[in-house]
Amino acid sequence: MSYATQKLAEEKVFKDPVHRYIHVRDQVIWDLVNSREVQRLRRIKQLGTSYLVFHGAEHSRFNHSLGVYEIVRRISDDIFHGRPEWDEGERLVVLCAALLHDLGHGPFSHSFEKVFALDHEEFTRKILLGDTEVNKILLKVSENFPMKVAEVIAKTYSNKQVVSLISSQIDADRMDYLQRDAYYTGVSYGHFDMERILRVMRPLDDQVVIKSSGMHAVEDYIMSRYQMYWQVYFHPVARSAEVILRKILQRAKELSERGYKFEQPPTHFLSFFDQSFTLKEYLALDEGVLMTYFQLWMTERDLILADLCDRFVNRHLFQYVDFDPGKDYKKLGELAELFRSAGIDPEYYLIDDSTSDLPYDFYRPGEEEERLPIHLLMPNGDIKELSRLSQIVDAISGKRRTDYKLYFPAELLIDGKKTAIKHKILEMLREGGV
Amino acid sequence: MSYATQKLAEEKVFKDPVHRYIHVRDQVIWDLVNSREVQRLRRIKQLGTSYLVFHGAEHSRFNHSLGVYEIVRRISDDIFHGRPEWDEGERLVVLCAALLHDLGHGPFSHSFEKVFALDHEEFTRKILLGDTEVNKILLKVSENFPMKVAEVIAKTYSNKQVVSLISSQIDADRMDYLQRDAYYTGVSYGHFDMERILRVMRPLDDQVVIKSSGMHAVEDYIMSRYQMYWQVYFHPVARSAEVILRKILQRAKELSERGYKFEQPPTHFLSFFDQSFTLKEYLALDEGVLMTYFQLWMTERDLILADLCDRFVNRHLFQYVDFDPGKDYKKLGELAELFRSAGIDPEYYLIDDSTSDLPYDFYRPGEEEERLPIHLLMPNGDIKELSRLSQIVDAISGKRRTDYKLYFPAELLIDGKKTAIKHKILEMLREGGV
Amino acid sequence: MSYATQKLAEEKVFKDPVHRYIHVRDQVIWDLVNSREVQRLRRIKQLGTSYLVFHGAEHSRFNHSLGVYEIVRRISDDIFHGRPEWDEGERLVVLCAALLHDLGHGPFSHSFEKVFALDHEEFTRKILLGDTEVNKILLKVSENFPMKVAEVIAKTYSNKQVVSLISSQIDADRMDYLQRDAYYTGVSYGHFDMERILRVMRPLDDQVVIKSSGMHAVEDYIMSRYQMYWQVYFHPVARSAEVILRKILQRAKELSERGYKFEQPPTHFLSFFDQSFTLKEYLALDEGVLMTYFQLWMTERDLILADLCDRFVNRHLFQYVDFDPGKDYKKLGELAELFRSAGIDPEYYLIDDSTSDLPYDFYRPGEEEERLPIHLLMPNGDIKELSRLSQIVDAISGKRRTDYKLYFPAELLIDGKKTAIKHKILEMLREGGV
Amino acid sequence: MSYATQKLAEEKVFKDPVHRYIHVRDQVIWDLVNSREVQRLRRIKQLGTSYLVFHGAEHSRFNHSLGVYEIVRRISDDIFHGRPEWDEGERLVVLCAALLHDLGHGPFSHSFEKVFALDHEEFTRKILLGDTEVNKILLKVSENFPMKVAEVIAKTYSNKQVVSLISSQIDADRMDYLQRDAYYTGVSYGHFDMERILRVMRPLDDQVVIKSSGMHAVEDYIMSRYQMYWQVYFHPVARSAEVILRKILQRAKELSERGYKFEQPPTHFLSFFDQSFTLKEYLALDEGVLMTYFQLWMTERDLILADLCDRFVNRHLFQYVDFDPGKDYKKLGELAELFRSAGIDPEYYLIDDSTSDLPYDFYRPGEEEERLPIHLLMPNGDIKELSRLSQIVDAISGKRRTDYKLYFPAELLIDGKKTAIKHKILEMLREGGV
Repeated sequence: MSYATQKLAEEKVFKDPVHRYIHVRDQVIWDLVNSREVQRLRRIKQLGTSYLVFHGAEHSRFNHSLGVYEIVRRISDDIFHGRPEWDEGERLVVLCAALLHDLGHGPFSHSFEKVFALDHEEFTRKILLGDTEVNKILLKVSENFPMKVAEVIAKTYSNKQVVSLISSQIDADRMDYLQRDAYYTGVSYGHFDMERILRVMRPLDDQVVIKSSGMHAVEDYIMSRYQMYWQVYFHPVARSAEVILRKILQRAKELSERGYKFEQPPTHFLSFFDQSFTLKEYLALDEGVLMTYFQLWMTERDLILADLCDRFVNRHLFQYVDFDPGKDYKKLGELAELFRSAGIDPEYYLIDDSTSDLPYDFYRPGEEEERLPIHLLMPNGDIKELSRLSQIVDAISGKRRTDYKLYFPAELLIDGKKTAIKHKILEMLREGGV
Repeated sequence: MSYATQKLAEEKVFKDPVHRYIHVRDQVIWDLVNSREVQRLRRIKQLGTSYLVFHGAEHSRFNHSLGVYEIVRRISDDIFHGRPEWDEGERLVVLCAALLHDLGHGPFSHSFEKVFALDHEEFTRKILLGDTEVNKILLKVSENFPMKVAEVIAKTYSNKQVVSLISSQIDADRMDYLQRDAYYTGVSYGHFDMERILRVMRPLDDQVVIKSSGMHAVEDYIMSRYQMYWQVYFHPVARSAEVILRKILQRAKELSERGYKFEQPPTHFLSFFDQSFTLKEYLALDEGVLMTYFQLWMTERDLILADLCDRFVNRHLFQYVDFDPGKDYKKLGELAELFRSAGIDPEYYLIDDSTSDLPYDFYRPGEEEERLPIHLLMPNGDIKELSRLSQIVDAISGKRRTDYKLYFPAELLIDGKKTAIKHKILEMLREGGV
Repeated sequence: MSYATQKLAEEKVFKDPVHRYIHVRDQVIWDLVNSREVQRLRRIKQLGTSYLVFHGAEHSRFNHSLGVYEIVRRISDDIFHGRPEWDEGERLVVLCAALLHDLGHGPFSHSFEKVFALDHEEFTRKILLGDTEVNKILLKVSENFPMKVAEVIAKTYSNKQVVSLISSQIDADRMDYLQRDAYYTGVSYGHFDMERILRVMRPLDDQVVIKSSGMHAVEDYIMSRYQMYWQVYFHPVARSAEVILRKILQRAKELSERGYKFEQPPTHFLSFFDQSFTLKEYLALDEGVLMTYFQLWMTERDLILADLCDRFVNRHLFQYVDFDPGKDYKKLGELAELFRSAGIDPEYYLIDDSTSDLPYDFYRPGEEEERLPIHLLMPNGDIKELSRLSQIVDAISGKRRTDYKLYFPAELLIDGKKTAIKHKILEMLREGGV
Repeated sequence: MSYATQKLAEEKVFKDPVHRYIHVRDQVIWDLVNSREVQRLRRIKQLGTSYLVFHGAEHSRFNHSLGVYEIVRRISDDIFHGRPEWDEGERLVVLCAALLHDLGHGPFSHSFEKVFALDHEEFTRKILLGDTEVNKILLKVSENFPMKVAEVIAKTYSNKQVVSLISSQIDADRMDYLQRDAYYTGVSYGHFDMERILRVMRPLDDQVVIKSSGMHAVEDYIMSRYQMYWQVYFHPVARSAEVILRKILQRAKELSERGYKFEQPPTHFLSFFDQSFTLKEYLALDEGVLMTYFQLWMTERDLILADLCDRFVNRHLFQYVDFDPGKDYKKLGELAELFRSAGIDPEYYLIDDSTSDLPYDFYRPGEEEERLPIHLLMPNGDIKELSRLSQIVDAISGKRRTDYKLYFPAELLIDGKKTAIKHKILEMLREGGV
């Protein structure tokens, strides 16, 4: 028997609070789960800084990766299996892609990538194709297997059904994280009838469609997604922590470039500051390592670095007000000036942050980010785009909503020094505030 | 208004997956939650190494501390409030004790304490009474308030009703962790009708009793506890990770004492090796820091330290067989000898580990660990001990159950070197095994 | 102590799967629950014929009435209590109105009312004010108390906050039934964060408003309502059973008027046929009584009555096709003609049925059914109507959606008799069909 | 294709709150579900009078029958399928037996059987083999198929694995009802990890065994059963309603035998009074019919019948005290005498009732009711009886617990008539009471 088809003597199961059990029969999957690159995902939180608002959200990307794998396994083995439109030969590649799709995420991914101009998808690819345990395992399947998995994740794979299961507007990735993040945060959003959706998914030509009888379950899924984005993922307090995190990394980089003598040198970061890092160095970073540095830096002589680290570690976050970038643009400049006068560096202490979401979109060819629409399969065999049938989805389709906030350290503005200037600052902030 | 009775302008709520919401009205509680010593509990997992078996169990002691607080708040404000047997003046001290009862836990508490001969309860006391933010907050209530909280946690407090809510055989601590650990692991044990139990708790003389109409809910709670211990807390694979963790710390200590030159010196640990550490040094340790060291030590020259760290970080755990300390005692010596002959140090690679539990016990005066029994309040006002009324509880009452396992690195025994000796070892292990 | 303020010696609790426990302290409430008119609600299903599609939906209106009471009790005692805008004197009247709001429902309410031109709200009023146990209990509170409760339910009560809790676009009635019906049917819609909504409800002037921080929970509630209507309440198969039920009652009335000699005479119904019934006769009817008649009538000589009863009792329902009343109006006439030619009475076997819903509406003064909008209370004290702030709610606001179906007995059209005509009928139905 | 193997064009699913979905592919199963004898189970409550205590428990035996079918379907198709020890040829018979196992239950089964000396298992057999729709469907499979199904339900079928799935100490029947009754009542008992148990069930020789790795899930199941019996099934208030129900039927029979002229004659019951009833008459009875009679009888001239019916319909139940049949036997005679003196007929108003349970038992050959024990399959292939391995199960194994209660109408004893005698009665009851 070839490695690709080799089964474990006995099925292994993982107890999972979201899917109850995760089932593994394939030797390849078992080996991948046990690889160091997949185990590393245990040290990276699924929701970054959200645990500072939703204390239950301490779950890791390892959790989520197993969950996406399980959903794809169920689609492949229980729903698509035996259907003439589905190519059974794609089973292993789609299972591997599901398990490995988030492999390249770094610690506090979002902020880390922003400061060092990285892209986690590029790292997923590097881990799949580079000198790693994961690569060795995939190579045992066949010489071009690592590349096939990489292509699925990069959405360039030839079989678009396979791509669609991993990345589309209704893919296993989203179906897992919405439910999982709802479970761990404890919010009542994020629930939808996934079992119903899976039962009505069908492989068809170059896509995966949904039988129209499942339309309401899909509507519910889109609404869950909408609610989770605004209630959890974009929570302004978690963003406050993200802002501070970015500023810590930016400050450490700036100090390093300036030749500042760290008491606790940023050894792990040096190659990131000058973009010379290796894959091994990338993989050596995780959230425990970052937090260890931040704790040590709380006593650095540089007061900005020390203060920002203390804020992050001990959760003394910035406060925020709403902010209209059109209207308030000039005011932002004035505020920065006042901050400087008050002896507070606006580069690190007056930060505007925006976030936006497009809950669902139909196909807009030629646009920057082409999103494949959700297609419904009608009883008569016709295909219709979701927003044409669903009033609710139509209502939010293609409508991007953006939220702007201005972050600042409230306590520093009422500490009794330079009170006149600070009074003026507070007044200006209050005007624009909620 | 005094600090002790000061209320927040608006009630704060934390979304909690177990209790739905955690409610804070008291300024003292709010300040404690925001103290650095309480925030530190976010960096220590509630279940130590269990997440290596139950991947969902990544929740921190911070979670649990809030949960215990919320249960005690509900008992105090909804159940006991207004009852003549309850002293309202104890409200704040019992809420603080609930929130702070686990404050002294270190990283991977169990193993850490074992290797360095520490006791987390002693550290809870030191944090309450020492130079900490928590102490400063408690002092603002009154001069002897830190000591009162410490006494509640140490079970020496004069009001035994208060002690009983925090530590007894049916306390808020246990009620929270059973439900919480069940939630995060996803196991179906750990559920019981807490709302029912709370409703029938009554303060009475020097204890908290349960109205007998709630007996079955209490039985269910005892059974949950029993199942959680054997299914989750004592899981042999999590214990395998614990064993490795202890051996890492033991090896590092040994190497340090021997004068071994570390490439990555154990700076944070030095004062623990010689027992000279300060409270500040103790608080500087968390699981991220430990994991950072373990990752760095994976490339130390000392092969034992490097191997053990690799095992822990990348989850290459020891295998195990059942072991009867009475019968197999001699065999253990022979095995150790054979390990040595095979070039494997038995001190680090052949480890016997035992764990045991007493699911419930009635009062046995004069014994080492005196456990207060659960008392039921009969309709006629009589008090009866639980195991007298419950057949099921009686059946397991006072019966300690112990599990012995022998841990070893299975792969090293089939690596093709010294095969004759290793063959013999495997044979001996198999005989004693499951 | 007056009867109005009399408390039970010990709080009574009902175990409830939706709200966990329902708490009763007031003697008045306890007496009402034990009255025969409230107990009668156990014999009337909350969802009428829906159990023929969702087999779990066998719960009664008694269940729901307790649930609405519990929600209002929590609002009154936990949320509004002590707020200056809330009149504590309204507590008992709003609790009673909550418990009693559905008192007048008859068996399979919807169909029964349609055939006999009744209105359950009128019967609620008659029960409250007539010669009943409920009336006697309410009278013990005060002479005008029965009328006060009746006015709340009729929405004519002077205190509009009280009315709003029982009937508005976000009232306790809807909050209970959405959750309860979701629970018993097992569908995954119908869930929303009620605890959050309750926490942000505020009495204000002549209404109950929602703090804007709870807007997303309200959005989720509106979406739940939308989904429950289309997935559960308007399910075409449950409507098929409703159609048959109406036709049974219509046939029995027609036969009675024609002087048909029933083998099992419609004793209980006679006074309904000629509208001469008393309140006592109304209260004597329940779903067990109706089903008993239907079973007996399965062997009546009148074949239409016998067949319809057999269909209802043994769940041999009509099939259906979509139907456009504008376009297909003429076709309906032709079909009826063809049915007659085929020997099938279209009056009883070709039935068009429509249903429609307005998921949310803002205020449209002067319109037939004035709906009070949901108002949000902004942080600055302003009041804004929900659809102005919520994109999703705005999208569905004021948009009535109607579904038309044509019901017919599919088996009778393929029974091998008059095949040419029936073939033509089937062809016409198929054209208009799904 | 034969009828036995005929599949539906498309799988049908029922939404089920306990198992999420119930899946039907077989034409035979679909036809059985739609038969009038199976549909009749919708009119018989799963838990008889329990809804008078747990208002949520209004679910029917139809619900439960589908649930048992679904569990057996999963065992057959997902767990046993393909195992050499399992005979695939048994699939259809075990599915049918699962769906039909409760077919013979009458209205309020327990009481009805007691009064008329009936046995629902005998009626299940009669329905399977008599002139019914179910019989016609089964006959289409093969001539001896109805008998095979009957034998499985009677436990006389040759393949003991098949029998074991339907009736043993861990069968699909119990696994469904424990979970289902817990769901509808809302109690927190009744939960166990069924998915785990199913995964470790194995066909082996003439039984179904459980892999020992699932022992703790089985322990949890046994404990759930124990709790459900004492908390729900044997609830003294539901038994009060059962007692009244029995006395209504007994009174109606007595009156009928005495030649009493009923205003509303017991037409449906006459053939039961003299044991001359047909299967058709048996099937014509359901709980709606009984309740209809009880309502009509509330105004009969016979005051005992009228009072008992009023009590049942309007839930004015008897009160109860504990009762020790050994010790209090003589007292019972004295009490009956006093009742008579007080003008209250003890035959109808002073009723002793007992109930008992044996939560688990090992095999006791030769005893009246032989119970097959639960056998665990050890890793080495050995078979061990559950109570030998489980301390908890051992503790309750074979221990029958019985509860005795004495029921009486409390209000009649304080109505101001014959006060001296009644005072004495109350005193005697109180002595023996809780």
